[in-house]
Formats: sequence, structure tokens, C-alpha cells
Amino acid sequence: MPLTRWKLTLEYDGTEYYGSQIQGGGLATIQESVQDAITGFCQKELKAVFAGRTDAGVHARGQVFHMDLDYGDRPLEGFELMKALNAHLRPAPIAIVKAERVPCDDAQFHARFSAKNKLYHYRIITRRSPPVLDRRFVWHHNRTLDIAAMQEAAKHLIGQHDFTSFRATECQAKNPVKTLDRLDVSVQNYDEYGGQDIVIAAEGRSFLHHQVRNMAGTLSLVGEGKWQPQDVKTALEAKDRKAGGTTAPASGLALIRIDY
Amino acid sequence: MPLTRWKLTLEYDGTEYYGSQIQGGGLATIQESVQDAITGFCQKELKAVFAGRTDAGVHARGQVFHMDLDYGDRPLEGFELMKALNAHLRPAPIAIVKAERVPCDDAQFHARFSAKNKLYHYRIITRRSPPVLDRRFVWHHNRTLDIAAMQEAAKHLIGQHDFTSFRATECQAKNPVKTLDRLDVSVQNYDEYGGQDIVIAAEGRSFLHHQVRNMAGTLSLVGEGKWQPQDVKTALEAKDRKAGGTTAPASGLALIRIDY
Repeated sequence: MPLTRWKLTLEYDGTEYYGSQIQGGGLATIQESVQDAITGFCQKELKAVFAGRTDAGVHARGQVFHMDLDYGDRPLEGFELMKALNAHLRPAPIAIVKAERVPCDDAQFHARFSAKNKLYHYRIITRRSPPVLDRRFVWHHNRTLDIAAMQEAAKHLIGQHDFTSFRATECQAKNPVKTLDRLDVSVQNYDEYGGQDIVIAAEGRSFLHHQVRNMAGTLSLVGEGKWQPQDVKTALEAKDRKAGGTTAPASGLALIRIDY
Repeated sequence: MPLTRWKLTLEYDGTEYYGSQIQGGGLATIQESVQDAITGFCQKELKAVFAGRTDAGVHARGQVFHMDLDYGDRPLEGFELMKALNAHLRPAPIAIVKAERVPCDDAQFHARFSAKNKLYHYRIITRRSPPVLDRRFVWHHNRTLDIAAMQEAAKHLIGQHDFTSFRATECQAKNPVKTLDRLDVSVQNYDEYGGQDIVIAAEGRSFLHHQVRNMAGTLSLVGEGKWQPQDVKTALEAKDRKAGGTTAPASGLALIRIDY
């Protein structure tokens, strides 16, 4: 039987991992955990090619990777592969949520290069007491944020721009110009004490290193009233990381979906 | 200044605790963590009187306790007390979400005896892959549950009954007769793979030991088709724990609210 290329969709709690990409030096990573599970399943050392990196502490509901598997003559169903890999992943907070066969010819599927769109959520909880039940998945602010101001500020970032002011200084992308298709700020829920559960949804074909966290950090400055919405436009136009706002912590960020 | 009685509302992730009540023997409990924080704040050993016990691994969004504090002559505001206790609780996954002064006279407030109503949620996730992001707060089922059958079964439990079939054999309550005011089964959300996020809401003045978990376990048997809705009525009427269904795991249970 020829090689079969599989597309796998992955969920993880990144809190205790040094990011998605293998680091070496004994650091726990999502990729290494996944590759170990694959080896446990098929006794071969295979590479899991991820759609994109997530940093240490960042989560995913819809990360994607592909791998090429020669599984002998027996036909293998997606749900079998998913079940087997999940059994090997257990008890790590990592799970395969979908396994699909994809074309392995000229129009070959590639987790990274075939990706057309990515959706990230950045979640902020505002309330006086520290978050407890959601503590791994949010950024906590003590005070209520001004959502209307954040929404106005977000509009300045939508579209094609040079995002140098919002990328990590160590970012290795050759081109700092990216197209941001959507940057929505919304309150999902209010708790009984008036606290906000805020989601910033960022969507585009690709992002620079720390771009979503830097945009979230900057929007929170606007929400606090320390920046005016117009200041975000000024920061963007400066094309200088020093002009951008703070980097929001990893805990609030999750890769929600990748479209192909 | 005379003693002031405080009513405190508490949130916690019970996963790594041996329940709310102090156990001794070095076992981590919510009550001990809270009392240690109080001592850290006021340098006195005070008792935190809880509204009710939660078992090992059970969570709370709205547990309540009271304590009597002599804080000298300086007036103390609720938000100050909350902030100070939360600082001492950190980094434990326990937080005070509200602090209120309550009457300390003849009509004295008592966290346990003044409680009029309690609301618990039992949460079940059904999907093929293990839950990852919510793993601490749910009971996982591999297969979809029949919600309509569970709703029909739940009706047999509402009202005043002898709940012997649904209480832990070690339950010490003198009277097994309780009034269950509400037992709603609903799907909060479907994931994109058809998985259900189910909440069983149970409300009443008080509950027997393991009552909610035993009801949830029994309803899940109905949802799986192993029991018919009518079998729940038969089990209730047997007044025998052996006639009741399985005990659902602690992880899915949370004490949501107590009304006074």
C-alpha cells in the first residue's frame, strides 16, 4: 500500500508546554508529544508537520498537522487512527479531534503551505478577584475595559499593513506586510459582579511572531484609557516595535481554526 | 469595635483538593487554605463556617462561608477584605468573589443554617476524543446521550421523595426525605463534530451525600439507553442504594449558587 497523507486536527492546553515546535534539551513540546504518540502507534519515527507554531503557554482548539503513514495492507479509518493516537497521548492535555485522509498527488495537501486562513481568539477576563476556573486560558484585568474604544482602535489594524510595530523583535519573517481580515472585540458574557469575558478574534492568512499578543496588549491599553484609539494608528504607521504597546501574556491566546 | 460577621462567596477548582472540609493528616482542603489565608491577613486563628461540604474534586462558583472578625477600630470595606484574602490565597485556585457584612444580632446570619436554596451543575461532554481544555470540569462520554429520555427520567425525581436510592451508603443525614425543586437537563452547546456539552441543573434546599452525582450517573444510564426513563421511578421507589444507578465522577460537579 502506498503512503497515505493524513490531516490531523489537534486540541491542546499549552500551559505546561514550551510551545508547539520541538525544542530539544528535554523541553516538553506539543510536536514531540504527538510524534511520540505516532511512534507508539506504528513503531516508526515520523514527522508531524504543523500548520504553524504556537508559543509556550498558547492553546489550540484547531491546530493542524499532516503526516505520511505507510500502514501496510490493512485499511485504516480516520476514527481508528484518532482513537489510537489519543490512547497514546493520554494523559497529556492533547487530543486529536479529527483525522482525514488527504490527496497525496500533485495537488498535495501540506498543513503549512496549503493553509488559507487562521483564526485566533485572545481572551481577557475583567473582575476584581483573580480568575480561578478559567485561569489557564485568560488574561486577567482588575478593571472593566472600554469595549467601544477597543473596537474603534481595532479598525485601524484591519487590512494590509506593515505590522513591524506589532511583531516580536526576534521575528524572522522576511516581509512584515500582512493582511488582517478581521479583528473583532466582543463581550461574550458578564458575570454577576459586572466582570467582562472579552474575546478578541483575529483572522487572516498568516501572522507575524507575537502579532496577535501585541495587538491584544495594545488594545487593552486603549480599553484602560491609557491610549486613545487614534494612538493605535500612529503606532502602526511608526513601523517600529518600540511604538507598539505591550505583549499580552500567552495564556489568553488560542489557535481556534485553520481553513484550507 | 465589636465582632463583625462576614459572608464570603468563594470560587474554587477542587481538582487537587480533598474536598471543602478540613481533614487533618496533611490533606489539602479548601477550608484549610481559606483559614490559612485569614490567619495570614489578621494574625488570628478563625473558623470559616461553610454552607455545605463539597467532596474531593468537586468545584464551586458560589460556595459561601461566614467568619467573625474583630478588626480593631479601623473600618474595613468588603473589597479590601476580599483583596487581602485573595492575595494570601494566591496562587491556589481559590478566590473570594464577594465579601459582605451580615447582621450579627438575634437574626444572625449563618452560612449553613440560613441557606434557603442551593444550585448545582453537573456537566457532561460527549465526543469521541477526550476533553482537553475542559478536562477538569466535565465527565466525558464517548457517545451522544439521548437528552429527551434524560429529561423524561428527571421528572420522576422532582418533588419531595425519600432519596435513599440516590444517597451514598455512608451518608449521615438522619432523614433521607428531601425536596428537589428542579432537575433540568439541557445541551448548552454542540461542537463542530456533533459532540454535546450537557448541563444537569439540580436545585433544592439541601441534598444528601452524593445525591447529585448519583442522580447524574443514573440519568446518564438513561441517556445511553441502558435504562428506560421509567426505571428511574422504580429505582426511587425501591428506597435502596443498590437499586440506584452509578455515581458520576466528582470532576463534573460544581456548586453554582446558594440563596439566603
